[in-house]
Amino acid sequence: MAERERFDSYLDPAGTRALCERILTGAGLPADQSAVVVDNLVRADLRGISSHGISRMAVYTGRVASGGLSTDGRIEIVSDAPAAMRIDARNNMGAVAGTQAMRLVIERARTCGIAAATVFNGNHYGFAAYYSMMALESDMIGVALSNAPPTMAPWGGMAPMMGTNPFSIAAPAAKHRPLVLDCASSYVARGKINLADIEKKPIPEGWALDADGHSTTDAAAALAGVVLPFGTYKGSGIAIMIDVLSAVLSGASFGMHVGQLYRDADTPQNLGHFFAAIHIGMLSDPVAFKAGVDQIVDDIKGSRKAPGTDEIFLPGELEFENEIYYMKKGIGVGAGVLRDLRNLSQTYGDGTDPEILQKPE
Amino acid sequence: MAERERFDSYLDPAGTRALCERILTGAGLPADQSAVVVDNLVRADLRGISSHGISRMAVYTGRVASGGLSTDGRIEIVSDAPAAMRIDARNNMGAVAGTQAMRLVIERARTCGIAAATVFNGNHYGFAAYYSMMALESDMIGVALSNAPPTMAPWGGMAPMMGTNPFSIAAPAAKHRPLVLDCASSYVARGKINLADIEKKPIPEGWALDADGHSTTDAAAALAGVVLPFGTYKGSGIAIMIDVLSAVLSGASFGMHVGQLYRDADTPQNLGHFFAAIHIGMLSDPVAFKAGVDQIVDDIKGSRKAPGTDEIFLPGELEFENEIYYMKKGIGVGAGVLRDLRNLSQTYGDGTDPEILQKPE
Repeated sequence: MAERERFDSYLDPAGTRALCERILTGAGLPADQSAVVVDNLVRADLRGISSHGISRMAVYTGRVASGGLSTDGRIEIVSDAPAAMRIDARNNMGAVAGTQAMRLVIERARTCGIAAATVFNGNHYGFAAYYSMMALESDMIGVALSNAPPTMAPWGGMAPMMGTNPFSIAAPAAKHRPLVLDCASSYVARGKINLADIEKKPIPEGWALDADGHSTTDAAAALAGVVLPFGTYKGSGIAIMIDVLSAVLSGASFGMHVGQLYRDADTPQNLGHFFAAIHIGMLSDPVAFKAGVDQIVDDIKGSRKAPGTDEIFLPGELEFENEIYYMKKGIGVGAGVLRDLRNLSQTYGDGTDPEILQKPE
Repeated sequence: MAERERFDSYLDPAGTRALCERILTGAGLPADQSAVVVDNLVRADLRGISSHGISRMAVYTGRVASGGLSTDGRIEIVSDAPAAMRIDARNNMGAVAGTQAMRLVIERARTCGIAAATVFNGNHYGFAAYYSMMALESDMIGVALSNAPPTMAPWGGMAPMMGTNPFSIAAPAAKHRPLVLDCASSYVARGKINLADIEKKPIPEGWALDADGHSTTDAAAALAGVVLPFGTYKGSGIAIMIDVLSAVLSGASFGMHVGQLYRDADTPQNLGHFFAAIHIGMLSDPVAFKAGVDQIVDDIKGSRKAPGTDEIFLPGELEFENEIYYMKKGIGVGAGVLRDLRNLSQTYGDGTDPEILQKPE
């Protein structure tokens, strides 16, 4: 087991969920939409990707409260081919529009074998695997891509020309847990730098350049500079192609032209997403397919480890382990996130102090 | 401009094409299929990916001559959903089956908006962009994935559990050349190590481990060991998901169970491929789409370069530059490839010595 991050406090998951829903609803989001958004954030925390968890509550709530996004919860199909759609998210909350779009894609894949949607007028939709994994219960392979505000330099560059555009693919297994690849196209998710900034902790060398193009370990300086793509020119190219599929194809903002989540709270971000689902049973025997995925897991888990490696992990494996761990231990938060939640609860919620949600060590 | 590889000789492209077609036809492949296979190899050389070029003639010809693959050129759709197909390549040459499958996908995308095919009983199909780029002339975005014989360790491992599974996405532009991402999921294409081995040249540190799990600069030792994924655990995860889409979904061999191209010439490889095409015009205005891609190119090319970088390259840009350069300069070959071609010409062709195809420096 890789070592887990240490947090200042651990909060009861169900109580945290209720607290966050009250805050968003208090800020003006209908209750059913608050439930979707909070589910997305809380599951991110449980899966150990706290960069995409309730640390985002302050900025999400701010967007709702300022009237910077739609709260009617309606998305619209504006181009409609049998297996492909272009969808207007109409500036609704990212998770609200994203789950609806992915559901439409899954329905289409049921009759077409594969289906896809490209989405514009979107907002930050949380962690990408939330959507790719929606396909699993229908015995489908799910794909979710999104662009993001420009914070990453192309390979060889030092200006923020693209987002840390995330990509996720999920495929079901039988005896093992599904394979769920979920990556930012940056060396690390920028949310990890946000979190380090909130908690005033340094970041490792190599994650980012400061505004002058120099490597930095200061989270605030990194946020003022650029993050670097993973896998050198290949990750840079992947980020560009995600921008094309998510944003150029949908008519969203792309590259350096995307709005920032953390400033301009009342300007629509106009992010682009891309979703796809492949219906396994229309192509193959789902039992044979899942047995094949199980075989890959068994083969790789049982293969020879390189010197210094204790265990080889399959895509998504650590996140599933984390879910079990944090459900019991509680959602890990730092002092900064706890303070944010307390303020939000006082302003928009019923004033409940998140301290009372702390679980004993 | 990045520095180009230096070769011992440069051969006239048209003459080389004719020579290679005569060899494959002489070995027993029908002329129309030889033309497709050689077009795939020669275009790889012209694009500067000589690892996937005519250096493969010896092993390809050996497979044809030994009767190790089908030469009837027929593929079969065995599962047929409106927008998705499972296709049996029936152990035909990789490029022969691959081009037919991609053509079927493009036809389906014309009516469905998106279409995909997963292919089994396949063989090495050359460079992936050959197929993704087929979509461009129909104003579509093309995707091509394939698995490959196990030569790469998963991240953290040292055993060859997966191929250097390549992926390509191509998207059209208007005033600029298309964006064409084409990558192996290894740190470098294993073909580059093959080529170094043929030419008896050392390889850089970090590309591969030897059979004992130690880093090596000896190409032969690397071929006996494993190559490493690009982008650490992310590239490793991408390679696994390509295996799932190409091979587990199609019913091909996958992971450590795939047959080797360079040994067992009479055992079918049973590789898996995945192809997809997205019809831009059914979702969006193709003119607006291409203007968006042009804008990305302009933005990134004009952006601030990091210290030490002369130019930032878009996906596929160097390959298009190479095509112009090598069409004029000639196809670059080393002494090993030249010797292979001479032997093949004597055994299967009309005995033409490839030396006469050399272009003056």
